[in-house]
Amino acid sequence: MASTSSLTLSQVVLARSVPRHGSSNPHLPSSLSLPTFSGLKATPTTTATPTAANASSTRRRSTPGRRQAQVLASAAVETLEKTDTELVDKSVNAIRFLAIDAVEKANSGHPGLPMGCAPMAHIIYDEVMKYNPKNPYWFNRDRFVLSAGHGCMLQYALLHLAGYDSVQEEDLKQFRQWGSRTPGHPENFETPGIEVTTGPLGQGIANAVGLALAEAHLAARYNKPDAEIVDHYTYVILGDGCQMEGISNEACSLAGHWGLGKLIAFYDDNHISIDGDTDIAFTENVDARFEALGWHVIWVKNGNTGYDEIRAAIKEAKAVKDKPTMIKVTTTIGYGSPNKANSYAVHGSALGAKEVDATRANLAWPHEPFHVPEEVKKHWSRHIPEGAALEAEWNAKFAEYEKKYPEEAAEFKSIITGELPAGWEKALPTYTPESPGDATRNLSQTNLNALVKVLPGLLGGSADLASSNMTLLKSFGDFQKDSPAERNLRFGVREHGMGAICNGIALHSPGLIPYCATFFVFTDYMRAAIRISALCEAGVIYVMTHDSIGLGEDGPTHQPIEHLASFRAMPNVLMLRPADGNETAGAYKVAVVNRKRPSILALSRQKLPQLPGTSIEGVEKGGYIISDNSSGNKPDFILTATGSELEIAAKAADELRKEGKTVRVVSLVSWELFDEQSAEYKESVFPASVTARVSIEAGTTFGWQKFVGDKGKAIGIDRFGASAPAGKIYKEFGITAEAVVAAAKSIS
Amino acid sequence: MASTSSLTLSQVVLARSVPRHGSSNPHLPSSLSLPTFSGLKATPTTTATPTAANASSTRRRSTPGRRQAQVLASAAVETLEKTDTELVDKSVNAIRFLAIDAVEKANSGHPGLPMGCAPMAHIIYDEVMKYNPKNPYWFNRDRFVLSAGHGCMLQYALLHLAGYDSVQEEDLKQFRQWGSRTPGHPENFETPGIEVTTGPLGQGIANAVGLALAEAHLAARYNKPDAEIVDHYTYVILGDGCQMEGISNEACSLAGHWGLGKLIAFYDDNHISIDGDTDIAFTENVDARFEALGWHVIWVKNGNTGYDEIRAAIKEAKAVKDKPTMIKVTTTIGYGSPNKANSYAVHGSALGAKEVDATRANLAWPHEPFHVPEEVKKHWSRHIPEGAALEAEWNAKFAEYEKKYPEEAAEFKSIITGELPAGWEKALPTYTPESPGDATRNLSQTNLNALVKVLPGLLGGSADLASSNMTLLKSFGDFQKDSPAERNLRFGVREHGMGAICNGIALHSPGLIPYCATFFVFTDYMRAAIRISALCEAGVIYVMTHDSIGLGEDGPTHQPIEHLASFRAMPNVLMLRPADGNETAGAYKVAVVNRKRPSILALSRQKLPQLPGTSIEGVEKGGYIISDNSSGNKPDFILTATGSELEIAAKAADELRKEGKTVRVVSLVSWELFDEQSAEYKESVFPASVTARVSIEAGTTFGWQKFVGDKGKAIGIDRFGASAPAGKIYKEFGITAEAVVAAAKSIS
Repeated sequence: MASTSSLTLSQVVLARSVPRHGSSNPHLPSSLSLPTFSGLKATPTTTATPTAANASSTRRRSTPGRRQAQVLASAAVETLEKTDTELVDKSVNAIRFLAIDAVEKANSGHPGLPMGCAPMAHIIYDEVMKYNPKNPYWFNRDRFVLSAGHGCMLQYALLHLAGYDSVQEEDLKQFRQWGSRTPGHPENFETPGIEVTTGPLGQGIANAVGLALAEAHLAARYNKPDAEIVDHYTYVILGDGCQMEGISNEACSLAGHWGLGKLIAFYDDNHISIDGDTDIAFTENVDARFEALGWHVIWVKNGNTGYDEIRAAIKEAKAVKDKPTMIKVTTTIGYGSPNKANSYAVHGSALGAKEVDATRANLAWPHEPFHVPEEVKKHWSRHIPEGAALEAEWNAKFAEYEKKYPEEAAEFKSIITGELPAGWEKALPTYTPESPGDATRNLSQTNLNALVKVLPGLLGGSADLASSNMTLLKSFGDFQKDSPAERNLRFGVREHGMGAICNGIALHSPGLIPYCATFFVFTDYMRAAIRISALCEAGVIYVMTHDSIGLGEDGPTHQPIEHLASFRAMPNVLMLRPADGNETAGAYKVAVVNRKRPSILALSRQKLPQLPGTSIEGVEKGGYIISDNSSGNKPDFILTATGSELEIAAKAADELRKEGKTVRVVSLVSWELFDEQSAEYKESVFPASVTARVSIEAGTTFGWQKFVGDKGKAIGIDRFGASAPAGKIYKEFGITAEAVVAAAKSIS
Repeated sequence: MASTSSLTLSQVVLARSVPRHGSSNPHLPSSLSLPTFSGLKATPTTTATPTAANASSTRRRSTPGRRQAQVLASAAVETLEKTDTELVDKSVNAIRFLAIDAVEKANSGHPGLPMGCAPMAHIIYDEVMKYNPKNPYWFNRDRFVLSAGHGCMLQYALLHLAGYDSVQEEDLKQFRQWGSRTPGHPENFETPGIEVTTGPLGQGIANAVGLALAEAHLAARYNKPDAEIVDHYTYVILGDGCQMEGISNEACSLAGHWGLGKLIAFYDDNHISIDGDTDIAFTENVDARFEALGWHVIWVKNGNTGYDEIRAAIKEAKAVKDKPTMIKVTTTIGYGSPNKANSYAVHGSALGAKEVDATRANLAWPHEPFHVPEEVKKHWSRHIPEGAALEAEWNAKFAEYEKKYPEEAAEFKSIITGELPAGWEKALPTYTPESPGDATRNLSQTNLNALVKVLPGLLGGSADLASSNMTLLKSFGDFQKDSPAERNLRFGVREHGMGAICNGIALHSPGLIPYCATFFVFTDYMRAAIRISALCEAGVIYVMTHDSIGLGEDGPTHQPIEHLASFRAMPNVLMLRPADGNETAGAYKVAVVNRKRPSILALSRQKLPQLPGTSIEGVEKGGYIISDNSSGNKPDFILTATGSELEIAAKAADELRKEGKTVRVVSLVSWELFDEQSAEYKESVFPASVTARVSIEAGTTFGWQKFVGDKGKAIGIDRFGASAPAGKIYKEFGITAEAVVAAAKSIS
């Protein structure tokens, strides 16, 4: 990347090479100072520019300085209403043309949204938001989400003007190119300053609900009457496409229910989507719908030039504390383009040289591509010292807090740094074969309730199945409008919104560990959000119960078949299917440790025995031997299984051993973790010389050939399930020890 | 199944054994008279009971008889308002106790909804709906959908009382048992009289939108001022859970937009979901939301005993012709249970013997389990002759229509029977290697526009990506409120609702062939609906473009990786990835022929060459040889690929052949179809003796070991994609002919 030479230290540390998903290449290595809390110390941070650091240290030490920062923070809207309109026009056009020019250079991208949203975006980033460009991870920053992620050049232009090191002129010129920090949609793991990963429509607004929830929750837990250390807003721009997606209705219904007053969403009401005028498919009354969802709704009729209207709307939104606000901003897509504005033609393609020229003429913009006029640069340049001052101010406030409330401060620190409390894993329960058998969903509940006592950032809930998924935290109440400090989240029957909200929570602070739950089959409803968890490196814990035909009578609509395979195929997901108590504890250990990739725990409805040989350490390897009566790494058979079928494999092994065979039983609780082990370890579990292998799993056989090989046999279910008592279905479908024994004999 | 001996002929023909998903076991065999249109003939149908047939033939032949049937049909609500209230009470309680008793016997199920919804359900099935119990497939029946599918005992009780052969007393006693026709959720493929498959919440209401759309569309196309042959309603019961799901908002927004006046949804407003009072997660104003979506909204405050309120609401709903209606019916879940009503305890578990007794006492129901009092039986018994009369009346009307409008009648017949027009497949385009290269998404459009001229039931559209998915039917306009006869559907950005609406369209009439489109990666948004397509045997065609990293700059949020594997793992889905023009035509041939399973076509954004050796016939086999310079079925190498990578495999083969090797190239366009071929054919394509195999596909390698074997190599992408021009990503990710050649050499 051409801009490497101008990277600051923080960027060098943050810059990530392709391929990027793997535990060996974490996004925030421990050597990075920012997220490990040194930003809170009294000495200037190594990553701030000298100017910022000086400003910061100066202001932090003096009461007047602190007051000044407070003025900056609290009165931003009022102060900046005085900004010269002509200058704002220039800044807005600078944003427009950075987007136009970058899309034109890439000959790919979406200029329409940035051109239409530039006025509101200018006001949000230049006049309203609190942030520190030199520390994109400063805890108390306002969060911004571009839910209409295709318009990402808007946000890249803003980050560039605001002084973020991640988006320099060279980065803008590399828009949508291999290895750049300005990819085709906003990706938090590529570009510091981007909070979440958007593009798939509706995800961003739901992420924003999660961000706002996290703020409300942490504020309720940690703020004190004399020290408001958590106090920031979440801003979103969403478009018509986001509004049409069901996920946004789910998440916004919850935001209204929860009364997330510091969530302010700007709806870019431009009446154009890819297929043309939205009238062809979208004629509902969005304002009335949002009012029905419990939101405060404001309409800015002139989003193209009505700066004061936009400012007044934001002021009004902030004044409404008990409801989220949707500001409908009517804009013209591609504003300024004489021939393409207000048409789908400007949505997703470069304008073309001729139309770019015409737009330059129309908006009186004589500058070269990528040029930002000096007065605009100068105007925006204040954000670097101001941001440093804001952070310094907050650091000082936190230092006082820490003195007065050392316990809360320690807990809070662990949440905002992501450092797990020492010895947390000792809370995990362990079992012996003599421990009573239980469903892994119940064992999961034991783990959750044990972990919540040692992990201050653990919170979560179910999509209206808490009593089936067994996810209630018994020592806490419900997170509700009047009890935001509580840690049981009640998502209602809204799986997709739930997943995306958890992504937002996870990305709010490194130490927040959200979990969410439904029946495993209903991951189908939330798959798009789970994929984003995996891509954006959000370590959400998915507690997925009723993981097979073992759920019985509810029948094929409720019985997962292909789901294990479908997640094993998805990059950067840990798909875990524990077999008993020790393995469930192991699955939780893995899930908690993996903060950069989501874990999906597939858990049984039915009771299972505690098996000899299972262990937490085994789970951490993904696949391991639970029993073996062979020697020299040469058993007659290898039987392998996951979850509820490990018991069946163990029984089949007993049968075969009675007949004088040597049999190894392997638990393959997580294929991904096993893949990451050394070749030697893998050979010690699955020696190449042993080809008589049988697998059994109450799901599709798809993918199992990898472990059973050309000569082995995979027992599974390659059809939909059935409605009947679980035992009956297992028998009818041949998921039995007898079937394993027969398969083994057929290949011996 | 114990009830087999009492099956009527139609049931015997319709009864289906497990396993049920496969082309060899179609749901409606051609030997069955009902759906093959003989029901329209003047002679009594073989499947009607003697009584019904007599009534039918009598009334069909006389004008007074016809008039009588018209009175029955049009004035149902008015006529039946006079029904004795005491009798209605008894009928309602009979429904409640059939549900209570069946759940109790199974010790599994959901009694709460049937107990609360019995009053509205009685009125819908006994007083309002037009249907013929002896022919569940009579075209012009009103459709009923229980979107809250867990309450299926409600519908089984209704079908039983109404005289459907599919649900006899013995079937009720077999509720939720292996092989029964009364599974744990309603499944259209198990139980004639059930229209769609529900249980996963929100799917049913969206299916219902599809059913209502189909009615509106066919009415607009085929009705004449003097012959309204299409005229029926779609009724739905949905609960709080359905209301919370985003899919229902998507589908209902479209229903409002389309003004589907004959869609009447009953919202069972009981304030209880699994987690308890809905107040913990669902406090939005549902009425106001539906008004915002363009629906007519009515509130029945006393859904427990207010029969006249319910009747009046239905009358009002029918009077509103230009909007769908939501009737919010406030009920008490588990009505009648003295200790469990109005609590989550009655939602999803049997009441228990003691509470069943208490409920019997409370509702003054002295009868044995499963007993239906004689007067209730007698009251409901009229539906058999009345239904036969309604059908006969319609048959006569259609006979007149056929005389006056023979062309329309022939087309209409093909839609309602599902018989494809002779020679339709001749419309499929073919290509030679000399034909210009093109993206398969464009070739798909050529197919769609060719097929729509010969397939009267083909209609569909995209989720706001028509111009990217290339799905516009050029000879038709948009289906809209004022143009319902048109065949381009505009779904907006609502993938999930789109899929479920298409399921409804497909299940409305066997000859309706809905297609729908988005980017392949966004199947994640609609996966739950696609799974229902597969399970409920709806032959929806999923046109999924931008099928790999080949889409380029949009980056990893838009680039499918695991999606091919995830659908190959799903039962009863045809996952097709054509490589060029001939294969795209082949994919459409397969998709059109397979009316009982959905087809997913993964299509390229990028231009591809027309390859030598590809063919429609090859596609029908799923996997086939496109080139081979070996003899004796012993090539040195087998290279296999799908879609856009088949070109790469062909290039690699050329390279290896230049070096003197014998190389076979296999297109594996559909793994499912290949799996269905004979062992001999499979051996002729992949001889066991040839182990030097290399696969290449621009997606996960997960599952490919099945074809490359222990000694082969699978080239693919086991990470997320990247934002850059497509060619660059292919090169960087090693999806190249060079990589194939190197892999082949490494294993030779």
